[in-house]
Amino acid sequence: MPRRTLGNLPKQVKIVEVGPRDGLQNEKAMVSTATKIELIHQLGEAGLSVIEATAFVSPKWVPQMGDAHDVMTQISRKDGVTYPVLTPNLKGLDAAIAAGATEVSVFGSASESFSQKNINCSIADSLKRFRPVIDKARKNNVAVRGYVSCVLGCPYEGDVAPAKVAGVAQELYEMGCYEVSLGDTIGTGTPVKAQDMIAAVAQNIPIEKIAAHFHDTYGQALANLLAALQMGIATIDSSVAGLGGCPYAQGASGNVATEDVVYMLNGLGIESGVDLEKLVATGHWICSRVGRPSASKAQLAISAHLN
Amino acid sequence: MPRRTLGNLPKQVKIVEVGPRDGLQNEKAMVSTATKIELIHQLGEAGLSVIEATAFVSPKWVPQMGDAHDVMTQISRKDGVTYPVLTPNLKGLDAAIAAGATEVSVFGSASESFSQKNINCSIADSLKRFRPVIDKARKNNVAVRGYVSCVLGCPYEGDVAPAKVAGVAQELYEMGCYEVSLGDTIGTGTPVKAQDMIAAVAQNIPIEKIAAHFHDTYGQALANLLAALQMGIATIDSSVAGLGGCPYAQGASGNVATEDVVYMLNGLGIESGVDLEKLVATGHWICSRVGRPSASKAQLAISAHLN
Repeated sequence: MPRRTLGNLPKQVKIVEVGPRDGLQNEKAMVSTATKIELIHQLGEAGLSVIEATAFVSPKWVPQMGDAHDVMTQISRKDGVTYPVLTPNLKGLDAAIAAGATEVSVFGSASESFSQKNINCSIADSLKRFRPVIDKARKNNVAVRGYVSCVLGCPYEGDVAPAKVAGVAQELYEMGCYEVSLGDTIGTGTPVKAQDMIAAVAQNIPIEKIAAHFHDTYGQALANLLAALQMGIATIDSSVAGLGGCPYAQGASGNVATEDVVYMLNGLGIESGVDLEKLVATGHWICSRVGRPSASKAQLAISAHLN
Repeated sequence: MPRRTLGNLPKQVKIVEVGPRDGLQNEKAMVSTATKIELIHQLGEAGLSVIEATAFVSPKWVPQMGDAHDVMTQISRKDGVTYPVLTPNLKGLDAAIAAGATEVSVFGSASESFSQKNINCSIADSLKRFRPVIDKARKNNVAVRGYVSCVLGCPYEGDVAPAKVAGVAQELYEMGCYEVSLGDTIGTGTPVKAQDMIAAVAQNIPIEKIAAHFHDTYGQALANLLAALQMGIATIDSSVAGLGGCPYAQGASGNVATEDVVYMLNGLGIESGVDLEKLVATGHWICSRVGRPSASKAQLAISAHLN
């Protein structure tokens, strides 16, 4: 007789909420500073313990993040909650530290073409540029998280070798990133591919230092996350309401919705500390502000029942 | 080091395409007979080998299926493809046989309240009513498929015990159903629950006689299907474009989209015989006819790339 085969799922998962940064950054509608601050506060009230708050990048390239200083200095920080910010270079890091950031992120790629087109340099050069950022951050007691994009496929190259991902992840880890987040940027991954990629990375980095950042562009994110949980992954990046559509496909989805992730974790008996009802209300509210429908199916279903 | 843990996934999966019946039946817009026939033809061309074609039910209750006889007698049947139809009673069975159906389905429930509210009788009475239908069908060399609804939750009762599902499934199987399809009617299931329910049913019925019919209302369908595949389930019900919204939640999803299922199976190296590109074109076309957006994320992403 067949028996349950999901293995030893983690008892607890840390969710890294990326809506206010990775999410809003990819939304067209300009969002006011007050709304961003309110969003971050609501997410904290819903129990999220890591909330990516903003990005210290050139407002010329990313106008939506032009108010990074105001956001970081005006939010009320909750005990036990961290508010990482994206800092692609030393200028961004200095601005982040000046705004009181205690945690920053750097963003690399596992695909040469994506690295060239997205940040205009090779993977090797990007890693060289991160080193002084990471060094200075750590000297200032600022923790650094590393992102790797295109871990399950690249819009320009197609397949990306797990060994390539593992190499970039290892360099970021060895340079001092306390955690490396593996991004399926275009959402083309499926569960076996996801597990094989994670297995390769876990040869170089302890599994508890790896986060899964999976996009739902092809509807595969939760299945891939289930596969990741089965490997022992216990950190998941997600975005309230699935904020941040996919920039490569109009009308298509990007970030997996935090509500859908929490719904699955609740069903699996995995503790995340998130209050799903509060989170659903927040998702509903921010969608009304951004003027887009929610990409969270759980939110739509739960809202329909709550009304 | 963590290793791939998905176990022995099936090499091949049979998809039961339920769009023309279960899908359209739950769409508000009336669809013409010609469009239904064209949909069935296109699905056959895309490689689907089981296409639930229509339902022989009272047109008073289900106007959308009022043209069941015309659909069944006017479709061109493709070699190697079966076209099951829903027949809740002897009257429906007789009409189905008169229209040349070679396979029919009966629809039971694992929830007493749902059975009462949906078909106006107890589970036990419904099973009694199915017996003459199944007997007569088999005497006429017509194969019978059994559905069980509410296997992972009921809109009225909440949780449904796996033992209850296993009991109803066993009765349908022993009455002569060649396959029993387990329906997560309200889509509240999550992977561990799905596996525990399947384990209970598989105590009574061989695993190869069990189909998973999971709804995506809370975004969980693909994760649940991945969990089901890990148990050895090799038959999946799905609906092109996710046709058939959830009747319990406005704007919410119902049937999992065939495109999303096939995308996952392709990624897992599991053969389904379906040509995803043709299927995506069919999904795009039927959505334009029904006047609704596709519920398939894979379709939206692939269409965006094809354009």
